[in-house]
Amino acid sequence: MSDHIYKTIELVGSSPTSVEDAIRKAVAKAAETVRNLRWFEVVETRGHINGAEVGHWQVCLKIGFTLEDGE
Amino acid sequence: MSDHIYKTIELVGSSPTSVEDAIRKAVAKAAETVRNLRWFEVVETRGHINGAEVGHWQVCLKIGFTLEDGE
Amino acid sequence: MSDHIYKTIELVGSSPTSVEDAIRKAVAKAAETVRNLRWFEVVETRGHINGAEVGHWQVCLKIGFTLEDGE
Amino acid sequence: MSDHIYKTIELVGSSPTSVEDAIRKAVAKAAETVRNLRWFEVVETRGHINGAEVGHWQVCLKIGFTLEDGE
Amino acid sequence: MSDHIYKTIELVGSSPTSVEDAIRKAVAKAAETVRNLRWFEVVETRGHINGAEVGHWQVCLKIGFTLEDGE
Amino acid sequence: MSDHIYKTIELVGSSPTSVEDAIRKAVAKAAETVRNLRWFEVVETRGHINGAEVGHWQVCLKIGFTLEDGE
Amino acid sequence: MSDHIYKTIELVGSSPTSVEDAIRKAVAKAAETVRNLRWFEVVETRGHINGAEVGHWQVCLKIGFTLEDGE
Amino acid sequence: MSDHIYKTIELVGSSPTSVEDAIRKAVAKAAETVRNLRWFEVVETRGHINGAEVGHWQVCLKIGFTLEDGE
Amino acid sequence: MSDHIYKTIELVGSSPTSVEDAIRKAVAKAAETVRNLRWFEVVETRGHINGAEVGHWQVCLKIGFTLEDGE
Amino acid sequence: MSDHIYKTIELVGSSPTSVEDAIRKAVAKAAETVRNLRWFEVVETRGHINGAEVGHWQVCLKIGFTLEDGE
Amino acid sequence: MSDHIYKTIELVGSSPTSVEDAIRKAVAKAAETVRNLRWFEVVETRGHINGAEVGHWQVCLKIGFTLEDGE
Amino acid sequence: MSDHIYKTIELVGSSPTSVEDAIRKAVAKAAETVRNLRWFEVVETRGHINGAEVGHWQVCLKIGFTLEDGE
Repeated sequence: MSDHIYKTIELVGSSPTSVEDAIRKAVAKAAETVRNLRWFEVVETRGHINGAEVGHWQVCLKIGFTLEDGE
Repeated sequence: MSDHIYKTIELVGSSPTSVEDAIRKAVAKAAETVRNLRWFEVVETRGHINGAEVGHWQVCLKIGFTLEDGE
Repeated sequence: MSDHIYKTIELVGSSPTSVEDAIRKAVAKAAETVRNLRWFEVVETRGHINGAEVGHWQVCLKIGFTLEDGE
Repeated sequence: MSDHIYKTIELVGSSPTSVEDAIRKAVAKAAETVRNLRWFEVVETRGHINGAEVGHWQVCLKIGFTLEDGE
Repeated sequence: MSDHIYKTIELVGSSPTSVEDAIRKAVAKAAETVRNLRWFEVVETRGHINGAEVGHWQVCLKIGFTLEDGE
Repeated sequence: MSDHIYKTIELVGSSPTSVEDAIRKAVAKAAETVRNLRWFEVVETRGHINGAEVGHWQVCLKIGFTLEDGE
Repeated sequence: MSDHIYKTIELVGSSPTSVEDAIRKAVAKAAETVRNLRWFEVVETRGHINGAEVGHWQVCLKIGFTLEDGE
Repeated sequence: MSDHIYKTIELVGSSPTSVEDAIRKAVAKAAETVRNLRWFEVVETRGHINGAEVGHWQVCLKIGFTLEDGE
Repeated sequence: MSDHIYKTIELVGSSPTSVEDAIRKAVAKAAETVRNLRWFEVVETRGHINGAEVGHWQVCLKIGFTLEDGE
Repeated sequence: MSDHIYKTIELVGSSPTSVEDAIRKAVAKAAETVRNLRWFEVVETRGHINGAEVGHWQVCLKIGFTLEDGE
Repeated sequence: MSDHIYKTIELVGSSPTSVEDAIRKAVAKAAETVRNLRWFEVVETRGHINGAEVGHWQVCLKIGFTLEDGE
Repeated sequence: MSDHIYKTIELVGSSPTSVEDAIRKAVAKAAETVRNLRWFEVVETRGHINGAEVGHWQVCLKIGFTLEDGE
């Protein structure tokens, strides 16, 4: 938490199971290409409906990470 | 996703269990009287407290559905 | 629900498990020192990330309670 | 306040007299066709001006009611 | 603009052509089942993308109409 | 309601009596120097407190009026 | 209005009569335990409905007061 | 874009044709009495409905202009 | 619409012609370097003024696209 | 703080030095033509970038002043 | 950053000098009676005007702190 | 300011000194990897507290830049 500069990106995670699972999938996906992930913040929670049931939970997140030299 | 017109209604689902369950109950209730439900969007998450515990989760949703001819 | 006056305070609950658990912990903590808790309202949902996983869920809540005489 | 599902509708009440009267008229109108009204929430307060005076107060409300079986 | 009560509903119009056309289609659809439409207000403008082009414009509207006796 | 252009200005009315009175005073003041006032919209409601009582109600309004030729 | 530090608290006043009365009751209640109240700001106006009538007006307020030494 | 001070005013343009035309009319009207207009920003898009059609598009704009000496 | 993860980016499109044209240019530009664009959402509509006319329409968009493996 | 009516105007101050300096310049400019300035409120903080440096700080302010008789 | 519960309070700091000084004074005041302060977040920046100059900067802050056992 | 397309990114600058310094550091960091930076806009101002003092100022910024061919 010293003199760092952070960048935030926005992802939408999707899951048939729960809000938490949609968030975890977005965080895991971000971690495939970005190092030093630090925090997330929920921007919006939505979902698709199939018939009388929730088909997919969709959660839009801001994800923050530390910028290192040269990034 | 062609030239449809959608209508949105706003429901508040309630559950003693979880945020997801409150949403599922609102969607199931809407499906009793409305066909062609397509998506939902969380507007507000609240709840009642009994003593030191959450008594009910209450989630306010916008729910969108396709309008057919004559609706 | 008669002529009461309510006060609201703002807490941030934290949990390694889920959004609901973070909320329950904040409500239980509030109940240690405040009587007559009535409702809560989610203000913000955030979290810390460790590597590729969510380390802690953090939920900011407004919590409302009835003010009694002399409070 | 048990496991109910609520629906909210949005009305704009109008009155030459006061903000409260505009709200009361919207609530009374809603009660003509909807049972089990529970709460309202002010969304916007506006009005029309005639010359140097307020002609009508107009208050936009969300009104919530309990959905019963088959509604 | 006298002592009327208004109700607002929310529709999403869709058009392959323009923002105005999506709004006009939502208004025309509302007029099929609701009399005395008075005004609209844009809530959100979105769209679907096909390849490098906008496939559909989607505009979410609040539409207000006068409530008559018995409505 | 034809092809007019409107301008809006923002005033804060103040009254020791009520919200409505603060609004009426702001509208009357605007009418001293501006013709063709049409509508207002409440932006914020505040007040000053003296001891245990409300000293003044202060209501911030947007006020809209028709622009004529040369204005 | 010199170099003071202020604190704000949030109360919900309730009244069967009017918006102003709900605000006055919240301010009077705050004055029982807090000195040097200075201003309030309306955060939300809601109410309960009994049948076709407004049962209680509920107004959520931020109330600001001067912090003295040792507070 | 040097050390200027800007002022913003708020106008509502109206047009039977389109959103863009409503904006152009508001800008042209502002230019009749104000020099050095620089930018605009859409605050709200609304309209009046006649029967099943949009009668007028109404767009509320903030318009910014450079203040010169003595203005 | 299955278990995808989406990313959103924010672009500002610019056009001398219309709001729609500014959006189309931003979408076309995004498609030069990003595959699988799915939707957009208007964040802000602004413009530059030259004399008494709109010089450029500027529309700020969030654009969403599907993340594939390795992105 | 008695029964005054206030008007608010919106200015954007600009400075190569700091946020505070941009605000001071806007207030000083307003004072050239308006008497009885009372308060300001920051609406937005922006700036222009030259290369890797902040070229100008730009702060948009609402400024409130007392209306006297005939204003 | 483990399983803590945080509480947030809202203070308004005031300073004749700068935004930062107003924030520092509010934080120092909070530290007189609250332990374990962790973060702040600016809610609003305002100020009083004397003649053509800023008399006081006023910054409204949310301040978060860790709740310990028994608090 | 001609027919350009802009992209915006979001960074959080951090500084032990001041709000302006946190912004300058974020802008300088962005300039290491992005050309043609044009403007910034403050999204949020926060900070960390150490004891009774502000440890770090943290400012979240949107930064806009011109997209060139192939970007």
